[in-house]
Amino acid sequence: MDEYERPVFFHLMEYAAEAEGDVIDMVSGTPDWEPPEALRDGLKRYADGDSRSFQYPPSDGLSGLREAIAERRGVDVDRVVITNGAGEANYLAMATALETYSGDEIVLADPVYPYYHKRTEMLNGTPRFVTSEADGTLDPVAVRDVTSDDTAAIVVNSPNNPTGGVYGRETKRELVEIAEANDALFISDEVYDRFVYDEGAFETALSFESPNLVVTNSFSKSMAITGYRVGYGVFPPEIVDEIRTRHMLVNVTSSRPAQRAVLDALSETPEAYYERNREMLAERVRTFCAALEEAGAEYTRPKGGFYVMARFEGYPGTLENTERLIDETGVAGMPGNAFGETRTDWLRFAVVTPRVTEAAGRLAAYFG
Amino acid sequence: MDEYERPVFFHLMEYAAEAEGDVIDMVSGTPDWEPPEALRDGLKRYADGDSRSFQYPPSDGLSGLREAIAERRGVDVDRVVITNGAGEANYLAMATALETYSGDEIVLADPVYPYYHKRTEMLNGTPRFVTSEADGTLDPVAVRDVTSDDTAAIVVNSPNNPTGGVYGRETKRELVEIAEANDALFISDEVYDRFVYDEGAFETALSFESPNLVVTNSFSKSMAITGYRVGYGVFPPEIVDEIRTRHMLVNVTSSRPAQRAVLDALSETPEAYYERNREMLAERVRTFCAALEEAGAEYTRPKGGFYVMARFEGYPGTLENTERLIDETGVAGMPGNAFGETRTDWLRFAVVTPRVTEAAGRLAAYFG
Repeated sequence: MDEYERPVFFHLMEYAAEAEGDVIDMVSGTPDWEPPEALRDGLKRYADGDSRSFQYPPSDGLSGLREAIAERRGVDVDRVVITNGAGEANYLAMATALETYSGDEIVLADPVYPYYHKRTEMLNGTPRFVTSEADGTLDPVAVRDVTSDDTAAIVVNSPNNPTGGVYGRETKRELVEIAEANDALFISDEVYDRFVYDEGAFETALSFESPNLVVTNSFSKSMAITGYRVGYGVFPPEIVDEIRTRHMLVNVTSSRPAQRAVLDALSETPEAYYERNREMLAERVRTFCAALEEAGAEYTRPKGGFYVMARFEGYPGTLENTERLIDETGVAGMPGNAFGETRTDWLRFAVVTPRVTEAAGRLAAYFG
Repeated sequence: MDEYERPVFFHLMEYAAEAEGDVIDMVSGTPDWEPPEALRDGLKRYADGDSRSFQYPPSDGLSGLREAIAERRGVDVDRVVITNGAGEANYLAMATALETYSGDEIVLADPVYPYYHKRTEMLNGTPRFVTSEADGTLDPVAVRDVTSDDTAAIVVNSPNNPTGGVYGRETKRELVEIAEANDALFISDEVYDRFVYDEGAFETALSFESPNLVVTNSFSKSMAITGYRVGYGVFPPEIVDEIRTRHMLVNVTSSRPAQRAVLDALSETPEAYYERNREMLAERVRTFCAALEEAGAEYTRPKGGFYVMARFEGYPGTLENTERLIDETGVAGMPGNAFGETRTDWLRFAVVTPRVTEAAGRLAAYFG
């Protein structure tokens, strides 16, 4: 970590904000829809509450929130630790893998969610990349090829950022097995699990019992509150106390107002809230892909998540081209080369705007 | 980090809560007074606000909050990073010191704030202890003796937890010099700076300009909101980008509702709020010390902070004795042996209860 590697998307969000003319922001996965009403109400009740509730919660999170999560996920509550977003849960799992499991390599898919890659480097681990399939899924055979005693962890997110691929039950079962066979942790990041567009495509890794399995998640996407930083990990009993200690020594505990608001929202929000947002995103994906089709672009139709990757002939996914696209079309995406080596010709667009049809039209006009 | 080392105070708070009979809780430094009214109002306004404000703030914190802190502290805003409490700021500074500066030793005072010690071990650093003076201050000559090229950082907190000692200007100046001479970071944790009882005793390390100086702080104590987790570090320009990267890769960003409430409280809370709480604590310290005096106990009169250390003849500060004290007197403190090697005969009492006179009376009756 010799220099300050500010993630490209912060740069591009600023670039888009400062650009002249109207820009449709499809840079980052920031929800543009409303949080659950019960979340606002919960936060207001908390603000009026006893000042004792303004003090340290338990280090591993409000017990009511941990219990609600444990019940929903069908796991023992002792395995649940509330974290400062899924980001911290992934950090804790990866740091513990490198500290406690054999090996110093972390196996990641390429295209890669950049935080995984940079975090591996920060932890002085060695990233090992596996090329994803054309549809954004991961072939366990390819994972097996790069996994060895040197592997400390395998980290995947499904539904996937940036490809939209969704790994099915069989893939996850095999990843669990591969982790077990190599004294590694399988870290399954499932933050987009409420946004799956092909029924039955997704299965949580919690369907499997393994001492080598960690599942991370958060409420950032499902409740449209990326700034609240309420996430969690479900850890195996073998390492959960080590995880708790690291969490305590890094963060002491997570912010209580946000935890309390999420707890209220979790118990009071009807399933229809999640369903409505999922359908809205599915419709945006359909619309955007249809327009890309019409524009003659190559693209990956996502089975889940917020992102569509597209490739325009003769227009590689560099930072310069992404900036040029902002200036010349008013559509802001992410360059494919921010996600590793295998999709450098591509661009990624987040469907977190109602203006996806307009955006696709602009792209079609520009490239058509 | 072979086993789960749950800090003793969590254990004791539970023990006190489960004890039969009335227990006066003087275990942890959790404020028992009210937060600023503007903080509650700010949180409610936020809860009703635009849902865009529920999304990711800048990774290094809300710019208004960073600016308000920079202005108050008289530093360049680029040096300010908002963290998940001072705990995270200390973690970031210590991890960066071990990564980037020469040496793998961290110099700490004994008695030690346990988080420093445990965090050093988690980071695979080697703690080197300097025995504090009888009044809880630190002799720079003693620090110089244990500091060398092997030193990555010197970490102190003043007003001190657990001794109540306050390091003056000259001590801080020398600690800055020692850090500079040994390619080390001097990390000055000043979370109790609003609670100084001897006028003029305290001076912030920000009075000195040095590329080897980090100052950490938080609003947990000054605003009585330990559960909000809003802290910050003021870092030297040479490492602030590395700090930003680590913060981003560990936590992405800190929780926004809490940041927003603190920002409102910071601009709207009159100085009288802080002054009133400082005076209340000063009075509790006086009362408690007077009762200890009467009981014939040895004690350290704190010049700042929330804690009074006391020694009762023939009653060493072990966990067992602390539990026995809860059961037999209804006063819950912390065992001195939780804070290193030099005060194992002592107990620590946090004056975060209005019942300090009663507590001291119980102790006097028991030991008298």
